[in-house]
Amino acid sequence: MRKMGGLYLVGIGLGEKGISVKGLEIARKSDMVLLDSYTNVIDENKVKTLSGLIGKEVRLADRTSLEENIDPLIEESKKKRICILVPGDPLLGTTHISIVVRARELGVKCEVIPGASIFSSIGLTGLSPYKFGRTVTIPHLEKSFKPRSFYYQIKLNKDVGLHTLVLLDTERGGMSPSVAVTILDEIENEERLGVVSNSDLIFVLSRIGEENQHICLDRLESVISKEFGPPPHSLVLPGKIDEVEREMIKALFGVEV
Amino acid sequence: MRKMGGLYLVGIGLGEKGISVKGLEIARKSDMVLLDSYTNVIDENKVKTLSGLIGKEVRLADRTSLEENIDPLIEESKKKRICILVPGDPLLGTTHISIVVRARELGVKCEVIPGASIFSSIGLTGLSPYKFGRTVTIPHLEKSFKPRSFYYQIKLNKDVGLHTLVLLDTERGGMSPSVAVTILDEIENEERLGVVSNSDLIFVLSRIGEENQHICLDRLESVISKEFGPPPHSLVLPGKIDEVEREMIKALFGVEV
Repeated sequence: MRKMGGLYLVGIGLGEKGISVKGLEIARKSDMVLLDSYTNVIDENKVKTLSGLIGKEVRLADRTSLEENIDPLIEESKKKRICILVPGDPLLGTTHISIVVRARELGVKCEVIPGASIFSSIGLTGLSPYKFGRTVTIPHLEKSFKPRSFYYQIKLNKDVGLHTLVLLDTERGGMSPSVAVTILDEIENEERLGVVSNSDLIFVLSRIGEENQHICLDRLESVISKEFGPPPHSLVLPGKIDEVEREMIKALFGVEV
Repeated sequence: MRKMGGLYLVGIGLGEKGISVKGLEIARKSDMVLLDSYTNVIDENKVKTLSGLIGKEVRLADRTSLEENIDPLIEESKKKRICILVPGDPLLGTTHISIVVRARELGVKCEVIPGASIFSSIGLTGLSPYKFGRTVTIPHLEKSFKPRSFYYQIKLNKDVGLHTLVLLDTERGGMSPSVAVTILDEIENEERLGVVSNSDLIFVLSRIGEENQHICLDRLESVISKEFGPPPHSLVLPGKIDEVEREMIKALFGVEV
């Protein structure tokens, strides 16, 4: 008798039709299709396009379903084919890695289908993807939660000339570049380690892979007062820019740096 | 009148059906479909599967067509829709970035469709993708070409506790993990900076995204005498492994590290 169950984490890449042909085939064959709305900002259109492509209802899965309540879902996948769609690549999120690990503990093999992610799109800046240090995330700050580790990590990268990809919090509808830069600026004013300054170059990557993708090269101070439209956004803070990168940036943005 | 030309760099991701739905649509609408056989090892099956999916002949494009002779191709794309398929993500290869830049210089907008890449699949090791330093590539050594920069870069990563993704040369049908580790070992014996030692842990990632994908956790010394099957292969050399990573590795590989 054919075993019918299965658990699949399918990366849907960047943009509306970023899902791979393999991922699409798996989703179509699944009994239940969930879309991770926890680790990314999901808009209505994406849900509609995906439901249309797959020919099946796509249900949103929040943090509770993907973390605290993951066990029942994994158990269910022993009988049903369950496909969890993940924006970008599933292997970049600790939430998803935890699902793979927990599934294994519960005796279920979880198959992961990779997708395109912002990590490879950093090449759109003209900077070499091979010259990036560790990636950081800027979270929404709260009275009781004011981490600064991302600031120190950017410093570590810069100290050795490496660029930094800065991801922005996806909770509460995402974070605008303006808020992110303001947070960096405030920390700089207190720490004074010279990690960022007003005249620094910064890349703002908005909605990568979407039809209205936009990449902007600007100075830190002017990002503070600018609007970049709907999320997701990421930032790139350059370290040491070499000759080849300088030429790329000139060709791509028409700017001498 | 509708403008018919266009130049597209389409990432085909990992594995046989890794191309995105958007990339597939573009390839189907193109007058000419090329597959980059220069920056990756291409097997016959991949060409067949892609031709089948796209419903069009897929022609291989080598280094000469993609680098020295790129200008005529770009000029042709003013009248014809030309799609260049690229294994993984186009934005990770300097060859492809150069095409984007050269196209712009010749007055053609080159659209890039991202694909999944080995960069995000490093999560399959259980190591955090956010704790990787700069990626290196080990090239085939020749009498007149014996670079060591990759060895020093691995040292820089390790010195600050970061992991390293090690890509292997794709020319001459690729490089086996055994040859790569032997090269590292030989350089270590001459430089003696303590970058690698026989008992070091190493991950060998083989054919990621393919049906016969394999990820192996081993000691450096035993990789030297092992066979890992057909390319592509990549290596991951861990830096400092933290508690969470330790648990992941135990769950994924059943090994205490």
